[in-house]
Amino acid sequence: GCAADPDGSAPAEAAATLQVVPEDVANATRELQRQIQTANRAYEIIESVTVEVGPRLAGSEGDRRAVAWAEAKLRDLGFANVRTEPVTVPHWERGHAIAQTVSPYPQPMVVAALGGSVGTPAGGIEAEVVRVTSLDELATLDRAAVARRIVFIDEEMERTATGAGYGPAVAKRVGGAVAAAEKGAVAVIIRSVGTSINRIAHTGTMRYSDEVERIPAAALSNPDADVLAAQIALGEPVVFRLDLGCEYFGEKESANVIGEIVGAEYPDEIVLVVAHLDSWDLGTGAIDDGSGIGIVTEAARQIGLLSMTPKRTVRVLLTANEEFGLSGARAYAERYELDMASHVGAVEADFGADHVISFRSWVADSDLPLIQDIATLLEPLDVPYDGNTGRGGADLIPLRPLGVPVFDLSQDGTKYFDTHHTINDTLDRIDPEGLTHNVAAYATLAWVLAAVEPGLERAPEPPAR
Amino acid sequence: GCAADPDGSAPAEAAATLQVVPEDVANATRELQRQIQTANRAYEIIESVTVEVGPRLAGSEGDRRAVAWAEAKLRDLGFANVRTEPVTVPHWERGHAIAQTVSPYPQPMVVAALGGSVGTPAGGIEAEVVRVTSLDELATLDRAAVARRIVFIDEEMERTATGAGYGPAVAKRVGGAVAAAEKGAVAVIIRSVGTSINRIAHTGTMRYSDEVERIPAAALSNPDADVLAAQIALGEPVVFRLDLGCEYFGEKESANVIGEIVGAEYPDEIVLVVAHLDSWDLGTGAIDDGSGIGIVTEAARQIGLLSMTPKRTVRVLLTANEEFGLSGARAYAERYELDMASHVGAVEADFGADHVISFRSWVADSDLPLIQDIATLLEPLDVPYDGNTGRGGADLIPLRPLGVPVFDLSQDGTKYFDTHHTINDTLDRIDPEGLTHNVAAYATLAWVLAAVEPGLERAPEPPAR
Repeated sequence: GCAADPDGSAPAEAAATLQVVPEDVANATRELQRQIQTANRAYEIIESVTVEVGPRLAGSEGDRRAVAWAEAKLRDLGFANVRTEPVTVPHWERGHAIAQTVSPYPQPMVVAALGGSVGTPAGGIEAEVVRVTSLDELATLDRAAVARRIVFIDEEMERTATGAGYGPAVAKRVGGAVAAAEKGAVAVIIRSVGTSINRIAHTGTMRYSDEVERIPAAALSNPDADVLAAQIALGEPVVFRLDLGCEYFGEKESANVIGEIVGAEYPDEIVLVVAHLDSWDLGTGAIDDGSGIGIVTEAARQIGLLSMTPKRTVRVLLTANEEFGLSGARAYAERYELDMASHVGAVEADFGADHVISFRSWVADSDLPLIQDIATLLEPLDVPYDGNTGRGGADLIPLRPLGVPVFDLSQDGTKYFDTHHTINDTLDRIDPEGLTHNVAAYATLAWVLAAVEPGLERAPEPPAR
Repeated sequence: GCAADPDGSAPAEAAATLQVVPEDVANATRELQRQIQTANRAYEIIESVTVEVGPRLAGSEGDRRAVAWAEAKLRDLGFANVRTEPVTVPHWERGHAIAQTVSPYPQPMVVAALGGSVGTPAGGIEAEVVRVTSLDELATLDRAAVARRIVFIDEEMERTATGAGYGPAVAKRVGGAVAAAEKGAVAVIIRSVGTSINRIAHTGTMRYSDEVERIPAAALSNPDADVLAAQIALGEPVVFRLDLGCEYFGEKESANVIGEIVGAEYPDEIVLVVAHLDSWDLGTGAIDDGSGIGIVTEAARQIGLLSMTPKRTVRVLLTANEEFGLSGARAYAERYELDMASHVGAVEADFGADHVISFRSWVADSDLPLIQDIATLLEPLDVPYDGNTGRGGADLIPLRPLGVPVFDLSQDGTKYFDTHHTINDTLDRIDPEGLTHNVAAYATLAWVLAAVEPGLERAPEPPAR
């Protein structure tokens, strides 16, 4: 549970150790945490976007409705300066996805096209499967063993709290089609990048190269990957049929949606709290990134309810198309490039709504005393500080080279990849207690950044990723 | 874990309390339990049917392959008198299933046609939804409130170890279409009869009446039912589109498959161990009823491995089309009606492979001392006796009026309805330890029934269901 201590004794003790944050701001922080524990509307916000909008892939009709929903919701919740800012996004649709083993043991298979995949010719592609357990193994195969076949990359993803298993597993999703096409394969299928034991497939972005043919790419559910591997292990050549109706419809207009709690003293100085408005098309986008929408919107709203007013503006930015190219984040960085010096800090919520398990910063060394104070103020929430090695979320990538200090309030990701990019990304998977914990942590950070004197220095250059 | 005690001390103690079972048979029972704990092939049998056959709905191509698989597998495993016996089955196919809310909040919905449903007209049915929480509530509505609408029966199923939640929940699946059509509805959709929190729908049999129109019937996944209910709760009329490609293709020929461990003294007296060979079409039929196939086949095979030979024949019966009308069970009862006096007992495995939690009998009172002995021999497996109130599985329904003693070795059903009749009925859901426990329990029962003198009396008339 959330460990905020509402009885006042622990906060008084903590206050003694603060170096930079004045007592009135510290007291308001504790008021904010109590207020959020008592009542908050984060769950209601997520319910609203999942029930009234649902899937909202960039460029789709759901995306257009999401923009309208967000604008209306931010107004309803009392935000100032609510506005949409146009963003050009790609519009890809998956269409149908039919797959089966054809011989010697015909069975239907559950697959999902990877985001951006080309479709198959009408009627699908039918070819023998060649199984590898990694991109590395694929690299060792002769072209003759791969050409005219369907490559099956059968690599499992590790379950971790930090999500550390995702990076290694995602390489095959992003790069599998190019690696397979380079050896003449006609399609690539991968074991889903995800930890679900259910018969549902995990989608996500993949990439093509101009150097090789664009071949269809799809993910198999984990249980289907088990069956396919077992069929292959029986020793006969296994023929697979893949039929994808994917289509790319060119660029469409979407929008970032913004709302603000306006600062009383330095309204032009910005504390940016970010989530992405778009979602993959399979689920209702409850966890990815309805959670983030609920967390950052409600954190900012709660700051607006405080008896003390923030000095700086807390800006909620709900970005267009994070999933399929960071379009909104890049558009925001471009549009506000000249204002970046006044962005004193940015944090994104895009890793679900389970409890926050660590806090990291990426700030100038001169600001570490303030970070230490924020860590102290996060102690009642049991969120440990994990160093000045923060990276921010994906949507903050374009802001970091511009000197914006970024932060991570990282959620427990143990279950995150059970639903990630699947039809199971639905409201019932949100833990209301973890969600409240997130709102309290994000609000604490944003409030202090908006309330202290002076603002943060520019952050150092980010290390190369 | 399985509590079979291989060190010999507990069995010696138990032996003292046996009334009917002679010591050599009791010793062989303990040998059998040890032998099964040491090594058994039940999992391998289930893997084989799920990987090499997969879905095998009555009348389908998978059904034909399942019959061939079973015949070959029983031969390979060393059974005698392996044979197929023709059974006429209905052949229904679900085709496509597309559903969505149309307005005011359009979203795709995951549905599965109920087994036997008619299809919709091409392009689907679009109508306003009227939500009820039970068949009883539907009965209270005026025809004007239902006519030309889609009825949504939004009733949840309770999770229990015994499966007691299934009966009440299944009434709406079986009877919902008739009840809705009687009030002029154009289709019926139900919250899935099942406990899965995943976005997968549970199929299963439904019925029509000749008195009212046959309307399409489908199940929504539990998370989709949540969204639909939430949309309706917002107060605007919700329009739903249902597009089902179901079709009935008439009768086909399938088969029961039989293999025997032949009795040494009374080969014509039969201990019948039953599972159903068919499955619903969505999953690979691992749990329902691959489990049963693995349990009863391996239990019988292990009896054949004993150093002591059974007096009676242990007959493995893998029935055709349990799911969609008990065709194989009825055909068996008809074909063997004159031999029923020599069927000394029957047991079916059709409730998964989790640990056996109770043993019940349905025998003449004069046979209760033997049942008490069997209960004693099941004690090392921690399977408690639960009374002479057994009902047997669905496939034993046609045998009971013919005086055949039936038994229940009931599995823990807590998780059974998470996968029941869904795409998630796959091999990875089988717990090998629970499976071994089942093989040991079923083998114990079948062995004793096949080994003791005299055989069981005829069972009393079953009580009306």
